[in-house]
Amino acid sequence: MKKYQLMAPGPTPVPSEVLLAMAQPMIHHRTPEYEALFVEVRAGLKRLFQTSQDVLPLACSGTGAMEAALVNTLSAGDTVAVVCAGKFGERWLELCRAYGVRAIELRAPFGDTVAPDRVAETLATTPGLAAVLTQHSESSTGVLHDVRAYAALTAKTDAILIVDAVSSLGIADLPMDAWGVDVVVAGSQKGLMLPPGLGLVALSDKAWGRARASTLPKYYFDLAAERTYARKNEAHFTPAVSIMLGLRQVLRLLETEGLAATFKRHDRLARATRAGVEALGLAVFPRATPSPALTAVVSPAGVDSERIVAAYATDHNITIAGGQGEMKGTLFRLGHMGYAAELDVIVALAALEQILAGLGQPVDLGAGVRGAQKVFTDRG
Amino acid sequence: MKKYQLMAPGPTPVPSEVLLAMAQPMIHHRTPEYEALFVEVRAGLKRLFQTSQDVLPLACSGTGAMEAALVNTLSAGDTVAVVCAGKFGERWLELCRAYGVRAIELRAPFGDTVAPDRVAETLATTPGLAAVLTQHSESSTGVLHDVRAYAALTAKTDAILIVDAVSSLGIADLPMDAWGVDVVVAGSQKGLMLPPGLGLVALSDKAWGRARASTLPKYYFDLAAERTYARKNEAHFTPAVSIMLGLRQVLRLLETEGLAATFKRHDRLARATRAGVEALGLAVFPRATPSPALTAVVSPAGVDSERIVAAYATDHNITIAGGQGEMKGTLFRLGHMGYAAELDVIVALAALEQILAGLGQPVDLGAGVRGAQKVFTDRG
Repeated sequence: MKKYQLMAPGPTPVPSEVLLAMAQPMIHHRTPEYEALFVEVRAGLKRLFQTSQDVLPLACSGTGAMEAALVNTLSAGDTVAVVCAGKFGERWLELCRAYGVRAIELRAPFGDTVAPDRVAETLATTPGLAAVLTQHSESSTGVLHDVRAYAALTAKTDAILIVDAVSSLGIADLPMDAWGVDVVVAGSQKGLMLPPGLGLVALSDKAWGRARASTLPKYYFDLAAERTYARKNEAHFTPAVSIMLGLRQVLRLLETEGLAATFKRHDRLARATRAGVEALGLAVFPRATPSPALTAVVSPAGVDSERIVAAYATDHNITIAGGQGEMKGTLFRLGHMGYAAELDVIVALAALEQILAGLGQPVDLGAGVRGAQKVFTDRG
Repeated sequence: MKKYQLMAPGPTPVPSEVLLAMAQPMIHHRTPEYEALFVEVRAGLKRLFQTSQDVLPLACSGTGAMEAALVNTLSAGDTVAVVCAGKFGERWLELCRAYGVRAIELRAPFGDTVAPDRVAETLATTPGLAAVLTQHSESSTGVLHDVRAYAALTAKTDAILIVDAVSSLGIADLPMDAWGVDVVVAGSQKGLMLPPGLGLVALSDKAWGRARASTLPKYYFDLAAERTYARKNEAHFTPAVSIMLGLRQVLRLLETEGLAATFKRHDRLARATRAGVEALGLAVFPRATPSPALTAVVSPAGVDSERIVAAYATDHNITIAGGQGEMKGTLFRLGHMGYAAELDVIVALAALEQILAGLGQPVDLGAGVRGAQKVFTDRG
């Protein structure tokens, strides 16, 4: 018996109490029962997004929510700047291309970030720039971009800041209103500990102003219509009822922990993972601020990272992730977001040590575990 | 204790074994486990759609799948004909409006259908007509449109036939390839007995040809890209994993029953419901062929149908549905699709009798039940 463990950077494990909440008999979405659920969820989402704005749930995955953000606030022919230092930055570029939005590419190598100065310069030299699009946590590289600094810049201009927070919501602090972020996009299957299939979008007043002028076509993702229904505690179209049932349970779990404690937990898990990996002589991939959601690790020289991913699966029944796109074969990625605890990190590192030994790599068994334990036993 | 029962025309009850399948620990979608699931589901969906084409699952509700059908096969400025005799016909019109597609409205009063002759005439008098859009089962009125006849007409022209089968897939026979239907759209929360959140779309070769020429913008709903991934047994974007786990279970249940038996069961449930309602002196709403998915009933003179819907909920803990849009207050709708059996119809009719008595309506207690039982005991 090898206990199955999901340690990928999303989808993430779903707590049993949430699985059970979703396994309730199906309810109808035009009933007082659903309305009561939606009232509670709407209030909880505002606290989670740290916003007074409506947070709109959509039956789609994170990419659908990214598309909703774009088609509601932009128009064909608009010029935007895209922070692109990973696969999900490229997804913003692909979305822009599909919708006839001209994208100025602010590129950095995978593993790096785009300095706020470059964003400032683009804003200064591009009159009429409609938006800056970025990830908060770039899941493909494990980097956290400096959304706070970007927001301080866009706030002084007419441009809006659109942030893909799919792998940061409920993981890294992102106070939407306080920082002046205009659009926050999230999904259910990362920090929210739910199955994939629910997208979330919130817009600032500035972004809603842009939404009124947006001419891109939309219907299923029409956020203004969605908001009109949401304010009556109804869904425009049939919602993802089972995931919404789970979301109520998740929001209760998160409120019990407290948002500050949730962020602190993720920070400790990430620091411990990095300490453990480095104690084993491996390099953490990010050259910029690492994301608290996941740790991207460079495979030892001469070892295809896919072999490490495969060994996690076959030797230990643990699902982690390899590198995406150009990083395939070079990186492996350990998720520690959502329903993740200190001893999960210990498990991931102990398995890694055994896998490296199995691959004939020099390894000091227990060193990675000890590296993480030092972080966990630190009172700081 | 009042046993909760969901008898609305969607979402429909989810069988316990399907709820349990979905309550499994979350798996990752880029693993051999998911690939094996997708292989099985893809094969099962082809049999269910009665097509050799790929059936593409999308993480969205039925309306999202309708949008996917439209944006992949049409272009702005195209002219289409829309069969519109209910709320979901109007949804096609709204989608056309949102995407700049010119719609010739083939309207019939709610409760009625559009005769194939009118479709034929429109095809004959509108050179370059790109498509005919229709529902198969119109859930708002309980009418089944004659898709087979429409398909025979479009097959002789360059127009494609796009069919919303959200409330007919796995309920009423719709052999896509044999009838020559070009696009079939379905959702998870009706005949498929699953929670809402999964849309399904299949295209004929003729429709794929149109897809190549389509210029409407799309990204999340890009079916050509989705098909490329599906043929590798992968999802383009993160799929609705839990619903896919349930779908595998549902397809096994449906294969055990056999598709012909599934259709026959729904036909019997629908005939029994109509017989029961009429035995109580109430009128079934459709003036055209009634759908086997649901029965729309005209409320007795002087009784707001919302009172009947409310009495089902408060007296019996049963969720049914009222009339939508212009039919609000006039109709109530009993669903008998998906996970629905003979004795569910008996329950719905017995409750109706007691509710009518409670509202001071003349009612012969047991007459509705007896009407249904005559159908069920008929050997035909």
